[in-house]
Amino acid sequence: MGRRRKHWGWGYEDEQPSAQELRSQAAFISQHLGFGSEVPAQAVPLSEVSLPPPSLPVPESLAPVCTTDVYERVLHAYGRSYRDVVRAFGGRFDHPPDVVARPRDERELESVLEWALGADAAVIPFGGGTSAVGGVEPAVDRERFAGVVTIDVTAMDRVLEIDRTSLAARIQAGASGPALEAQLREHGLTLRHFPQSFEFSTLGGWIATRAGGHFATLYTHIDDLVESVRALTPSGVWESRRLPGSGAGVSPDRMLIGSEGTLGVITEAWVRVRERPRHRASVGVQFPDFLAGARAVRALSQSGLHPSNCRLIDPAEAALTGAGDGSSTLLVLGFESAAFDPVAWMALALECCADHGGTWEVSERPDQAVGNWRDAFLRVPYVRDTLVAIGVLSETFETAITWDRFEAFHADVLARTAEAVREVCGAGSVTCRLTHVYPDGPAPYFTVLGPARKGAELEQWAAIKAAASDAVLAGGGTITHHHAVGRDHRPWYDRQRPAPFAAALRAAKRELDPAGALNPGVLVD
Amino acid sequence: MGRRRKHWGWGYEDEQPSAQELRSQAAFISQHLGFGSEVPAQAVPLSEVSLPPPSLPVPESLAPVCTTDVYERVLHAYGRSYRDVVRAFGGRFDHPPDVVARPRDERELESVLEWALGADAAVIPFGGGTSAVGGVEPAVDRERFAGVVTIDVTAMDRVLEIDRTSLAARIQAGASGPALEAQLREHGLTLRHFPQSFEFSTLGGWIATRAGGHFATLYTHIDDLVESVRALTPSGVWESRRLPGSGAGVSPDRMLIGSEGTLGVITEAWVRVRERPRHRASVGVQFPDFLAGARAVRALSQSGLHPSNCRLIDPAEAALTGAGDGSSTLLVLGFESAAFDPVAWMALALECCADHGGTWEVSERPDQAVGNWRDAFLRVPYVRDTLVAIGVLSETFETAITWDRFEAFHADVLARTAEAVREVCGAGSVTCRLTHVYPDGPAPYFTVLGPARKGAELEQWAAIKAAASDAVLAGGGTITHHHAVGRDHRPWYDRQRPAPFAAALRAAKRELDPAGALNPGVLVD
Repeated sequence: MGRRRKHWGWGYEDEQPSAQELRSQAAFISQHLGFGSEVPAQAVPLSEVSLPPPSLPVPESLAPVCTTDVYERVLHAYGRSYRDVVRAFGGRFDHPPDVVARPRDERELESVLEWALGADAAVIPFGGGTSAVGGVEPAVDRERFAGVVTIDVTAMDRVLEIDRTSLAARIQAGASGPALEAQLREHGLTLRHFPQSFEFSTLGGWIATRAGGHFATLYTHIDDLVESVRALTPSGVWESRRLPGSGAGVSPDRMLIGSEGTLGVITEAWVRVRERPRHRASVGVQFPDFLAGARAVRALSQSGLHPSNCRLIDPAEAALTGAGDGSSTLLVLGFESAAFDPVAWMALALECCADHGGTWEVSERPDQAVGNWRDAFLRVPYVRDTLVAIGVLSETFETAITWDRFEAFHADVLARTAEAVREVCGAGSVTCRLTHVYPDGPAPYFTVLGPARKGAELEQWAAIKAAASDAVLAGGGTITHHHAVGRDHRPWYDRQRPAPFAAALRAAKRELDPAGALNPGVLVD
Repeated sequence: MGRRRKHWGWGYEDEQPSAQELRSQAAFISQHLGFGSEVPAQAVPLSEVSLPPPSLPVPESLAPVCTTDVYERVLHAYGRSYRDVVRAFGGRFDHPPDVVARPRDERELESVLEWALGADAAVIPFGGGTSAVGGVEPAVDRERFAGVVTIDVTAMDRVLEIDRTSLAARIQAGASGPALEAQLREHGLTLRHFPQSFEFSTLGGWIATRAGGHFATLYTHIDDLVESVRALTPSGVWESRRLPGSGAGVSPDRMLIGSEGTLGVITEAWVRVRERPRHRASVGVQFPDFLAGARAVRALSQSGLHPSNCRLIDPAEAALTGAGDGSSTLLVLGFESAAFDPVAWMALALECCADHGGTWEVSERPDQAVGNWRDAFLRVPYVRDTLVAIGVLSETFETAITWDRFEAFHADVLARTAEAVREVCGAGSVTCRLTHVYPDGPAPYFTVLGPARKGAELEQWAAIKAAASDAVLAGGGTITHHHAVGRDHRPWYDRQRPAPFAAALRAAKRELDPAGALNPGVLVD
């Protein structure tokens, strides 16, 4: 065994800050925000957590890959949303799995799946466990299922094959971001899919949830980096051909991508990799206000320049992350290439920014604001643990909308969410950044912070989530651009999708998984 | 009524060449190929075609939009594959629809669909009727269906809405390429989706078949130009939200795109348009051989330069189209932009070509070879009619394969197809070009020409098609990159797709279309 993950929050147990560090963080944060306690609470230790006894006996043949250990059941009881961390922090585990399986290869996975289905158990496919939307919580109908088996695929974490010529790699579903990047790096290659959860989330999880990554344009979702997928379904192996492109009917891959564990357990995929970038250009562009910045981003998104980074951060969010003083909007603009120096690209992009009132400093050193923002971005999941400890409610939600509706949508979602925050918390902030952009519209990402009331955090969260989601749907957006649907977004997802599509998806699910055992409650009932 | 389409081939009746023009074309072609008659045969005139009486009475309320006219039934009996044209030329119409409906709006379409389903008829959605794969031929089980109603959507051909800000347009499914481009041009916009069938094929057809278009990279299929789709299914309206991107579960659009009329009749779509390009750069690069050219194309496809045109044409095919003397491979390389002069892009791309032995002439005038190739490309569907008239078998098939397997695949598919052509025709040629390229592989497109034997053309075609398709599948390719599956590719498509996916698609179809009335025999049974 290596390092153990924290049972209630982000990161490893040995990364938990000391009491003194926590107090100093708490003082800094609460002073900056104007709310939150300066005295961090303590998480309920694992030793004080008690779970109901597992309702499924593990067959002897599967004993080497299955466990009913409390730590493992606790670790697999939740993802890592605010709602999850609050409950885990408080020692409350609503729906722990009965058994956690960690198969080491596909054959073991198949045996576990066969046993679980035969035992009338529900099955939760589990990668890094970083879901922000209740995607892996075994909240299943206990009347209907004899128990829950969570299948953790992280023991299957190898890069199995490299195709240098086609720039593709066959990678097991359980490989985390760092694990697969380390293996690719040996070949001078990289996938360059860097979601905020990168440290723990897995390739299989990214594909199952249509994760959004590093690239602000073109390759925004993992979808476009997938060449073929292999999954075990209750009705057999689903494996597509390795094809750079195809027009043969409905895309099999696109039916599996985003299926969130409801159709099968993804075991491996061929993905498109690339040579590590040798040339990089990055500039922090300041705009007098967010909407001016958004107009520049719109022009960039429609220019055909395809920047690799094009994140627009509103003044309040820039200030939160030390990337600004709260007076101006920051555009983090970047180009990168393994083949050529993107200097001509950056020059044209900056011209475009200047047309919309953007200013920047020419400097040999990396931009300070950009660096601060990147560091803060990577720290966010860790900071969230501290926020929970000091009674700060934090929630993020993200969407996409066409440009014609963006300004009104942005204003309305901000206003309605801020109103909910005021009502529910009495104080707090709602900020926005654009994480990904398309020629026809941006993906806005909102961050909510507010004072939490001890014991009422979940109700506060639910009220704000509902107000924000209602506003997103009413304005024509999508309930999620890359966080997935999970269990938290189901009510809005159901309103959003075309009814005949929902019927078709239900039928497809029923065909492959007649018992409805795979991740019940997600996407379809 | 405007101009009438030829009932047996490409184009309009008034475009049919005169007997003298035909003789001159025939002499030129047969001399160039070394086979084919110099005396073109005559198509069986419509007046000599007799069809079985329609088996469905049209209700009075639908009389304004339905016809049983022989010309219309003949015109909707086939697509425009070689197999189709041979049969139509000979006056043979195997499976004419009983009724052709041409609804003028969605309400009329709904009435027709309701009536047809109620009358136990099969329903064939029909756009431009240019299918190269038997996609619209009403070859349905007459024991099972009381008749066939073909729903031609070409009366619904308007651009309904323009969103200048998001660069998107709402367009009816029946708009042909020229019709929609003309309407977009009034706003300075363009879709830039130019399949070879552009003149007649429709937006709805493109979406239903995942058509491949103008762009050699990035936006290779219509898929990526679709923002949302609306379709009538037997179970209600399927309409997705207008979203620039979404991660909410399986993509509804991607389940409809490529469904080839089996799930519903597409009525309109929001598509991504763009400003008309103001800057263009185009160069014809010569390579000593096809594989050297392919290596340059691979480097280009992995460079991140994203040329808009990157067609690699082998020496024999270049010679066929007057774009070469048969000694060298031609790369048609192009960049275009509305925002900037792509001079830096072209310079880098040419550097890349030079690295692989490419040479080109710098000239102020447009490249002659490129111009010749483009003209020939646009003439192909017309020339095909003449080929049929002079007894030349012609077939094209296209696929995609990853770069690591490309060279062996190309050699094997060429060899096995050429062998079949020799066996079946005694003489003939198989040539290849790359039409679209991805970082992980190209889409090779093969052209077969050979002497046909009168009366045996369909058997000859079938034998060559089978050999070629077997070779494509055996080599790991896809049975189609952008021509679709239709009825002709079914056997190979069935071998290619993952079994659980096929089961899921069948279940989805059964759910939406319990009678299996929509385009029976295509994709699923």
